[in-house]
Amino acid sequence: MKLNFEKLNGLVPAITQDYKTGKVLMLGFMNKEAWEKTLETGKVWYYSRTRNKLWMKGESSGNVQKVKEIFVDCDDDTVLIKIEQAGNAACHEGYESCFFRDVKGKIKDKKVFDPKKVYGGKNE
Amino acid sequence: MKLNFEKLNGLVPAITQDYKTGKVLMLGFMNKEAWEKTLETGKVWYYSRTRNKLWMKGESSGNVQKVKEIFVDCDDDTVLIKIEQAGNAACHEGYESCFFRDVKGKIKDKKVFDPKKVYGGKNE
Repeated sequence: MKLNFEKLNGLVPAITQDYKTGKVLMLGFMNKEAWEKTLETGKVWYYSRTRNKLWMKGESSGNVQKVKEIFVDCDDDTVLIKIEQAGNAACHEGYESCFFRDVKGKIKDKKVFDPKKVYGGKNE
Repeated sequence: MKLNFEKLNGLVPAITQDYKTGKVLMLGFMNKEAWEKTLETGKVWYYSRTRNKLWMKGESSGNVQKVKEIFVDCDDDTVLIKIEQAGNAACHEGYESCFFRDVKGKIKDKKVFDPKKVYGGKNE
């Protein structure tokens, strides 16, 4: 399948979902290179808009995302990746999911690790 | 919670997920107005990048998305909305989910309606 990277200046949003529980873990962006590396390696790669670089999820924390199944949406401009999440935490703040707060700011998720201990000041 | 619309030229990605089954249904973009209308009305509104206009999901098809719970990610730049999907189909191609194909193009989802009958040529 060929993705349409043109609608978002070279990027597509990639949603990751726990392949067992169905929990939505995070949303990142992929450029063409991140997409190809994800397909090649079976691990999820993203393109960081703030750091302007390619990165593999887990390269600092060890919390790698192993690809189980990939879906492409009807417009070929978004992907949904079912993954196995190493360390049971996708969020750099130490939670299982990046969507750990509800719209009122209330924390609704489990904290798995202390980010200071894992990243030592770096922000994955 | 205040969303960061600046990282994506006034938009944030919004993921919708079936509140009962956990199935990821679609990803759309919201501008500030779509976000506010979603909060006000309890139904999901998006901003269409291709048609350059605000729209309520279901305004043509009747397949409205009723908000059950909203989550905001760690960077305040993406939202995850658990919804009740009217008509059991989010995709304008008639499937339950917009992510109805795997990466090889194989259809993995259930077709619920015939888009020609529902939209009569319009593309919601």
